[in-house]
Amino acid sequence: MKALVVDADWEPREDYELSEFEKETGKVIEGNSVWRNPDMAVRDVEKPTPGEGEVLLKVKACGVCGSDIHFYETDDDGYMLYPGLTKFPIAIGHEFAGEIVEIGGGPETEEFEVGDRVTTEEMVWCGHCRACRDGLPNHCENLEELGITVDGAMAEYISVPAKLCWDVDSIFDRYDDEEVAWDVAATTEPTSVAYNSVFERGEGFRPGSYVVVYGTGPIGLAAVQLAKSSGASKVIAFEISPQRLELASEVGADYAFDPGEVDPTEVVMDITNGEGADFQLEAAGAPAQTIPEMESSVAINGKMSQVGRAAERVPMYLESFQVNRAQIYGAQGHSGHGIFPSVIRMIGAGLVDNSRIITSKFDLEDGVEAVKQASKREDGKVIINP
Amino acid sequence: MKALVVDADWEPREDYELSEFEKETGKVIEGNSVWRNPDMAVRDVEKPTPGEGEVLLKVKACGVCGSDIHFYETDDDGYMLYPGLTKFPIAIGHEFAGEIVEIGGGPETEEFEVGDRVTTEEMVWCGHCRACRDGLPNHCENLEELGITVDGAMAEYISVPAKLCWDVDSIFDRYDDEEVAWDVAATTEPTSVAYNSVFERGEGFRPGSYVVVYGTGPIGLAAVQLAKSSGASKVIAFEISPQRLELASEVGADYAFDPGEVDPTEVVMDITNGEGADFQLEAAGAPAQTIPEMESSVAINGKMSQVGRAAERVPMYLESFQVNRAQIYGAQGHSGHGIFPSVIRMIGAGLVDNSRIITSKFDLEDGVEAVKQASKREDGKVIINP
Repeated sequence: MKALVVDADWEPREDYELSEFEKETGKVIEGNSVWRNPDMAVRDVEKPTPGEGEVLLKVKACGVCGSDIHFYETDDDGYMLYPGLTKFPIAIGHEFAGEIVEIGGGPETEEFEVGDRVTTEEMVWCGHCRACRDGLPNHCENLEELGITVDGAMAEYISVPAKLCWDVDSIFDRYDDEEVAWDVAATTEPTSVAYNSVFERGEGFRPGSYVVVYGTGPIGLAAVQLAKSSGASKVIAFEISPQRLELASEVGADYAFDPGEVDPTEVVMDITNGEGADFQLEAAGAPAQTIPEMESSVAINGKMSQVGRAAERVPMYLESFQVNRAQIYGAQGHSGHGIFPSVIRMIGAGLVDNSRIITSKFDLEDGVEAVKQASKREDGKVIINP
Repeated sequence: MKALVVDADWEPREDYELSEFEKETGKVIEGNSVWRNPDMAVRDVEKPTPGEGEVLLKVKACGVCGSDIHFYETDDDGYMLYPGLTKFPIAIGHEFAGEIVEIGGGPETEEFEVGDRVTTEEMVWCGHCRACRDGLPNHCENLEELGITVDGAMAEYISVPAKLCWDVDSIFDRYDDEEVAWDVAATTEPTSVAYNSVFERGEGFRPGSYVVVYGTGPIGLAAVQLAKSSGASKVIAFEISPQRLELASEVGADYAFDPGEVDPTEVVMDITNGEGADFQLEAAGAPAQTIPEMESSVAINGKMSQVGRAAERVPMYLESFQVNRAQIYGAQGHSGHGIFPSVIRMIGAGLVDNSRIITSKFDLEDGVEAVKQASKREDGKVIINP
């Protein structure tokens, strides 16, 4: 079968000391410290066979994520930009939906049948480490990740643990066009990352709140919709890309500004009549720029959640958290806590409509072009249909 | 009557622009930008008369707080160190207990009688601003503060709003010695600041947790006791003063270290078998030093609360909050949320025993000496008995 495969040279940087774990498993903890000269191409690979507890999916749609872009982009020394856990070569792609075509057997698969339409979590949590036993799968200590440490879904087929699969029938009830339904179903994962950051980790906001979203890539665009559908009285978005700024307005942001053209604190305080923002999401991955604005425009009793990633220290003024009764939460992941089924319900109910943010589509054969397009960071969501 | 009175010269710094509010009220928002050459002395002042809604207390015991020290200490230019809202001249003192000797009348006073033994909140919340209407009195927009913007309790008598008073009879049931009971009752306020930071703002911890307290001045010492009494399986304290380090152990810390002599992260990870701290309190007022340690020794799902004050930016690594499912809360105040009555119950039940942290006692006549003693920052709590 065909798959979009990434490989790279194993060339640890001089100052990077490989751990025993990395030497034994071939899995690198800091990808950008080891993988050089990445190569991305559509290749012929073996069609997977589902093992015990797994199901085989025929992939119908797969979104391009920021991490996929970071497998492609390199720094001046030729090292891959992706900073996290990685193992190559691998078929990439982890935001997807497909049809079950074969069942590996075992109790985990019993609720599924051939022909079922499903989407899946990307995080392959083990279910037996301390974090998993505590009900915190997003912090699994034995994590594998589809399309990052094990083969992903920019491929004709993928074999996945059945325990990661969620039925998306309600999405097909919402959209008449089957292809649109598949594409939208594939956006469940990034929408779930946004849901986790706002409602699970960030503990949500109360109806009537003023919500501000910094950064309206796919996560931020999902957050804008989730906020609008959950009773926010005003949603304010900040984004530097003109295309994404327009998308933010299209999906329901009441206000959308380029932070280079306005003073975000001034704008937020003005729109909120001086009361400030009740909930603020950092989805820009630029906390050194955004957090100081969030601090100076936070409402009394305001919450902030950091879901964008950035390996940088942020000069934070905790005094403003004390005076304003504020708090900040770190968020990662999308698994557990009823998140996937809640997001699927919201999409099915029309409370989130990601058909509006799908801006580019490619065949699997043009997978590299799809990643190149996404690397322009102008799209809402780029989708590959194998 | 006698009172320990602070006065200072109104000399705004050249770069400080006085607001209309400050000009009209004589209340300064940033005390250390206006008040110069502070003078602290025991003086004869008029005995107050309780107005409508107020009660007159004969003060029995009043603790010296860090803020009292900052009224006394100055920078190189002679400006007072205290950075907050202030109005002078004023009788200072706000951690106190006393006996009701006169009642001003009105519905707020109906539950009290002459002879009642009470302690009071320091924050005179208005009850009608947005924050108060939201049940958040610690963030009152029309705040007055006993001993800071209105006359306090390092005096023979003080008139206070009855709505700030809490009955301390249960403390007298616990301690046979009446003077000890009064002294302990006067520590309700700082213990309530600790309670607010851990259980109200910080959302507490679950029994069995590993708790770390940075800084064991009076707030930290209260936090150590609250944690030990509330099911923490291990409490680890860090403190630079040898005397306070000893007090931390005396009130129940399982481990107490000088952070200058050990690597806090290493110590915490070692004691917690690599699991990290479930709850961490910053009560040192040195977040630039302590927060990075807290970040690198936080458990998955760990909480942090900042109650120490410091007008500095802290280089925070939010990535560690994301990876560890961590969050940080800003905490200030002690009012509302059932905090005072809960603390009084805990003292009455022997779950917090502040008689162990009272290390110096002075008569009101020696009030200046009391503040000087406290300024050495070696004591648990310095008490003045008028």
